[in-house]
Amino acid sequence: MPERPHEFELIAELFAPLATSEAALGLVDDVALLQLQNDCDLAVTTDALVEGVHFFPTDPPETVAKKVLRQNLSDIAAKGAEPCGYLMALSLPDHISLEWLRSFCNGLREDQERFNLSLLGGDTTRTTGPLSVAVTALGSVPRGQLIRRSGARPGDLVFVSGTIGDAGEGLAVLKAGKQTGDAWLINRYRVPQPRLSLGRALRGVASAALDVSDGLLADLGHIASTSGIRIRVDIECVPLSTAFRNTCGDIEAAIVRAATAGDDFEIAFTARSAAAVEDAARRVGTPVTRIGNVEPGVGVVLCRPDGSVVPTPKLGFEHF
Amino acid sequence: MPERPHEFELIAELFAPLATSEAALGLVDDVALLQLQNDCDLAVTTDALVEGVHFFPTDPPETVAKKVLRQNLSDIAAKGAEPCGYLMALSLPDHISLEWLRSFCNGLREDQERFNLSLLGGDTTRTTGPLSVAVTALGSVPRGQLIRRSGARPGDLVFVSGTIGDAGEGLAVLKAGKQTGDAWLINRYRVPQPRLSLGRALRGVASAALDVSDGLLADLGHIASTSGIRIRVDIECVPLSTAFRNTCGDIEAAIVRAATAGDDFEIAFTARSAAAVEDAARRVGTPVTRIGNVEPGVGVVLCRPDGSVVPTPKLGFEHF
Repeated sequence: MPERPHEFELIAELFAPLATSEAALGLVDDVALLQLQNDCDLAVTTDALVEGVHFFPTDPPETVAKKVLRQNLSDIAAKGAEPCGYLMALSLPDHISLEWLRSFCNGLREDQERFNLSLLGGDTTRTTGPLSVAVTALGSVPRGQLIRRSGARPGDLVFVSGTIGDAGEGLAVLKAGKQTGDAWLINRYRVPQPRLSLGRALRGVASAALDVSDGLLADLGHIASTSGIRIRVDIECVPLSTAFRNTCGDIEAAIVRAATAGDDFEIAFTARSAAAVEDAARRVGTPVTRIGNVEPGVGVVLCRPDGSVVPTPKLGFEHF
Repeated sequence: MPERPHEFELIAELFAPLATSEAALGLVDDVALLQLQNDCDLAVTTDALVEGVHFFPTDPPETVAKKVLRQNLSDIAAKGAEPCGYLMALSLPDHISLEWLRSFCNGLREDQERFNLSLLGGDTTRTTGPLSVAVTALGSVPRGQLIRRSGARPGDLVFVSGTIGDAGEGLAVLKAGKQTGDAWLINRYRVPQPRLSLGRALRGVASAALDVSDGLLADLGHIASTSGIRIRVDIECVPLSTAFRNTCGDIEAAIVRAATAGDDFEIAFTARSAAAVEDAARRVGTPVTRIGNVEPGVGVVLCRPDGSVVPTPKLGFEHF
């Protein structure tokens, strides 16, 4: 294996070309300098991936790069904010080659172009452990328009974008060591789609929102607890992809599995007006499904059409 | 060892009490929401520490917390910015106990009070490798007043705050396994002092600035290359502490060692007017020493009083 260049060479070759915004100061200063519009607030979030914990050592470097970036963008999206850039702290074990890093940076570059982003700063360190990448994403949102978790009220309706359970199923396929088929599900796990257009369209429409990372029911539980309400999810409404349906035996068990798997990175949200949600979803071309209701009370329940409660041993994915 | 609580319990017990600013949204939302003053820009930086690479497993958890926070604050300080908060991505191996984490968070709490900061968000993940902590610090700076690296011009004078070489010497003491004495030097290595008041006082006074993290000569080299000038440092002017002097044999070799060690976290800067610098330094009570001159040319040289150049095999600390 050829020796990896030192930090300053890595920055010059790999990272400086990603610093496309003036705010990055070319990565040759101590900080990035961001100018926000006067009527905007800053939304900021951080999320890390660790090799062997959040991704497989055999995952393509491009998808590792895209996953860490997109799971941060997904937080920005769910709040109705507009991403403007990111910082990255990269801890590199000695076995990571320059080739791997080039592919990783290529993944970043592709996503920067897709989402109109710039790398703003970073830190590259050596580690004796697995590769880890921590990204901090910054976004701007018109003052007062951030969509919080705490705004759901009894009488609101509950919605989710896209389909649920695909990433969890893709992970199960990878864990089982299957190499063929299910490429679509695996891709849903490796390369989430942050719902940025939908998030912006939901400003003033959604009463509460978040991105589904821990599992649909667990995340709706976060809305329920911060809003001080109860959420009822109708099991027959949970949107499933054809690929996911094809993996199913018992459909009720499969939906419970889908609704408690993580990594969907869809937006789950509440809103008063179904018509306003439909209009927003149509405008941006993102599928949205109504899945339940906000009620007085606490917690989240998954209900059958006859009103009986489906037992759910856990609500979502435990991080550790 | 008692089992460590899961992520949500850790957040509730340890991290939520650190989210003292409203901007953190109580750590119960997807993002933090920061409102900047209309005439201010945002300065943002990230820096990580890895156990066994940047700190010793036996270092007190409080000092690990303070070091990662302060080395980020030092970047903010050197730019003339005012810190307003930070995000933290923490990767925890299984051997880290709840007790360790409590002490770590206690260190953060003490520094938050000292520097008037809030934790704004974070991510806690498991790792199979060493503990690592990535901090992203945010600061605000009046529009147009950020002190960059690129503003040094021939005729400017060169200054540095505090004393140089103490942290490097403290690290050498720790590496040699000495347990007693030199506590002051070790503390300079473990708990840097971000020069926040000085940085703010240098707005409009310094033409270029950065914090000394790679080594005085290496960092002045960054100012030289981004400003397109040459810096001459007068060896007899490099400020040394009494504790450092007490460790010295050959004084010239010791100064070279001091000027090429890392982790000082002092501010090195250039300015046109010595009187304005003296006034700023006196106002905030931070010692500042004039150490050299900005000239046409490239690079950094360390000179003896007779004008001869001191050979420096390396300019600073190589990160990896």
